[in-house]
Amino acid sequence: MKRILLVVTVATFTMNFAQADGAADYAAGGCANCHGITGVSVIQIYPNLSGQNSAYTVKQLKDFQTGVRKDPTMNAMSKIVAGKEQSIADFLATQK
Amino acid sequence: MKRILLVVTVATFTMNFAQADGAADYAAGGCANCHGITGVSVIQIYPNLSGQNSAYTVKQLKDFQTGVRKDPTMNAMSKIVAGKEQSIADFLATQK
Repeated sequence: MKRILLVVTVATFTMNFAQADGAADYAAGGCANCHGITGVSVIQIYPNLSGQNSAYTVKQLKDFQTGVRKDPTMNAMSKIVAGKEQSIADFLATQK
Repeated sequence: MKRILLVVTVATFTMNFAQADGAADYAAGGCANCHGITGVSVIQIYPNLSGQNSAYTVKQLKDFQTGVRKDPTMNAMSKIVAGKEQSIADFLATQK
């Protein structure tokens, strides 16, 4: 029983740690400037990202990086968060 | 006072009518097959569209139609809903 509790505790801690990483990566990437602190955009032409499926967000970031998806701002911004796609996407998926 | 009430009633009716149109256009376009009945996708790689900014959704549909944004499925599907971009986008923006 103690072992199970320990595993649950570690899993919970890891999850919270990953989310905190994602929030920091999102903030550091300057994403909030257009997409809002929690992924709710203030400007209509920018997409809301809160609650978005993480696999979709990761793919879009990579498509912007490689130029498969074209947008002058995002082609540049996506490169700033290279390697942090998953943590940012996981953070956004948890936001409302 | 009566005139104000009438205006409010007409405005409300028009809004509901537009939303009903959007729901029908969204359904008729086959959008729900991938994006869910209310814009919440069941499959992770497809984006959630519920609550999305309507101006953003309209732009994406038009970009898919013209091929500015490339995705084999959406390049085809977006053409089915030509002329209905705004009503669909307005419907999705109201969904949770």
